[in-house]
Amino acid sequence: MRLVTFKRAGRVQYEIGALDAAGAVLDLGAVEPALRGETMLDIAGAEPAMLEKLRAAMAKAPKVEGAKLCAPIPRTPKNVFCVGKNYHEHAKEFAGSGFDGGAKDVVPPYPVVFSKPHTAIIATGEPINGDLDPTGGLDYEGELGVVIGHGGRGIAKADALKHVFGYTIVNDVTARHLQKRHSQWILGKGLDTFCPMGPAILTADEVPDPTKLVLTTWVNGEQRQKAPVADLIFDIPTLIEAISAAITLEPGDVIATGTPAGVGIGYNPPVFLKKGDVIRIEVTGIGVLENAVA
Amino acid sequence: MRLVTFKRAGRVQYEIGALDAAGAVLDLGAVEPALRGETMLDIAGAEPAMLEKLRAAMAKAPKVEGAKLCAPIPRTPKNVFCVGKNYHEHAKEFAGSGFDGGAKDVVPPYPVVFSKPHTAIIATGEPINGDLDPTGGLDYEGELGVVIGHGGRGIAKADALKHVFGYTIVNDVTARHLQKRHSQWILGKGLDTFCPMGPAILTADEVPDPTKLVLTTWVNGEQRQKAPVADLIFDIPTLIEAISAAITLEPGDVIATGTPAGVGIGYNPPVFLKKGDVIRIEVTGIGVLENAVA
Repeated sequence: MRLVTFKRAGRVQYEIGALDAAGAVLDLGAVEPALRGETMLDIAGAEPAMLEKLRAAMAKAPKVEGAKLCAPIPRTPKNVFCVGKNYHEHAKEFAGSGFDGGAKDVVPPYPVVFSKPHTAIIATGEPINGDLDPTGGLDYEGELGVVIGHGGRGIAKADALKHVFGYTIVNDVTARHLQKRHSQWILGKGLDTFCPMGPAILTADEVPDPTKLVLTTWVNGEQRQKAPVADLIFDIPTLIEAISAAITLEPGDVIATGTPAGVGIGYNPPVFLKKGDVIRIEVTGIGVLENAVA
Repeated sequence: MRLVTFKRAGRVQYEIGALDAAGAVLDLGAVEPALRGETMLDIAGAEPAMLEKLRAAMAKAPKVEGAKLCAPIPRTPKNVFCVGKNYHEHAKEFAGSGFDGGAKDVVPPYPVVFSKPHTAIIATGEPINGDLDPTGGLDYEGELGVVIGHGGRGIAKADALKHVFGYTIVNDVTARHLQKRHSQWILGKGLDTFCPMGPAILTADEVPDPTKLVLTTWVNGEQRQKAPVADLIFDIPTLIEAISAAITLEPGDVIATGTPAGVGIGYNPPVFLKKGDVIRIEVTGIGVLENAVA
């Protein structure tokens, strides 16, 4: 299932739906009363019986007319966890760019983790506010996002995938000069609208092997990134083990796993985003996250 | 007023109280019905009339028997913002320690900001879980915490103090080896229990000039840190301007402003915390935040 959070025209509350094969939003709540008033955090933390109910509802659910897609998790329990320098070729392009204000290793010996607050999260189709970076260093980073289901601390690698509720797409939008200036990355990456997320969460039961997922990013129709998740330096179980070693993960926490080569600072000179540019990120089976710079 | 969040014996819900001069918890909700069911986030975001009500209630409020103090904001809207290397002498001791896995500047040209998730927040008197750092590099950092009242984005320095609801104390507990290993700091600083906060929020109306506040830290009764807030490299208005430039601040967001010289890695060789050590941090007028390593 591709679960979504949506709003009905003229309404303010979030509702849970599913995308059909053509991308229409199905109104699961219309046929499954247990779903009404629930958020994606509730669903992510629910027992497997809830997913069964959703699956059954999907078969009978009507389409929602005029649904507005929201980020699947508009407000994460904590800041979104993000991983830096987690694909070999990207780690090289970043090191070579001169924009790394952090450690000097090209390939990090341990995962490099930072965060973006919920105020950065936007939905597919919503504008990235480029004016918030007055330094002209706007860049994109297409990433696979892992959504935590049952949380916990001290999750071992071997058990990690059991704690995954599903997968989504994150654009780790970055103001490169600010990232470098501030050395720690939240002020260069956590800006309002700098965390597009969506369009849906592909539930983990339909992803037996996440390393097989392929991420592709286009800017204005030109392909810029393409890599299988298998190319991650620190794979998903390793990331979950590393983060949860001492931080309790909660249902709906999101880990953006890092970006492959092909970002704007990989070019010499760097090619930064400008107003009107459209970043389109696709991951196998999840769908398309598309946002323009406003 | 020194506002606190507390729990009554045998109850699970948070309530809002105030500390009297002797440190007893006054039951504001017993005399001010508008307060019942409110959290500190509601109070921080409320109109000034709410503070007037609280002040009036304080005069008549009975003491709460057996109140358990909680962190004044047990769950911040976003991860707690923390500032690194923000006192000159500490920036030097950190640079000299070899533990800075981040930028190489001794005195940073721009604020160095990272975050700790709400799962790290504990109250005064609660234990710091030292076992979560298996590398034996546990350190303390006494800090003044700024609590945001009315939020916003693009807050100018000149207006910044109007957005401060009050001041608290934060211990930016750190696992130094993890801080260095991971280069970005959330995994070395965001561990569960690594953000003691409290005991109270001293409301901003009673702090006409926060630079006059003095922070003192003792470990097992030995004084380790003492500095006026005037010594900050980036002062409170500058920090609020820098963070809010592109991140919307919300009522109850907390900014830990950085630590003065005198932390464990300032010694040669470093003196790390061990089980049973008690860290006591006092800031003028706010009170004492005291936590032991368990």
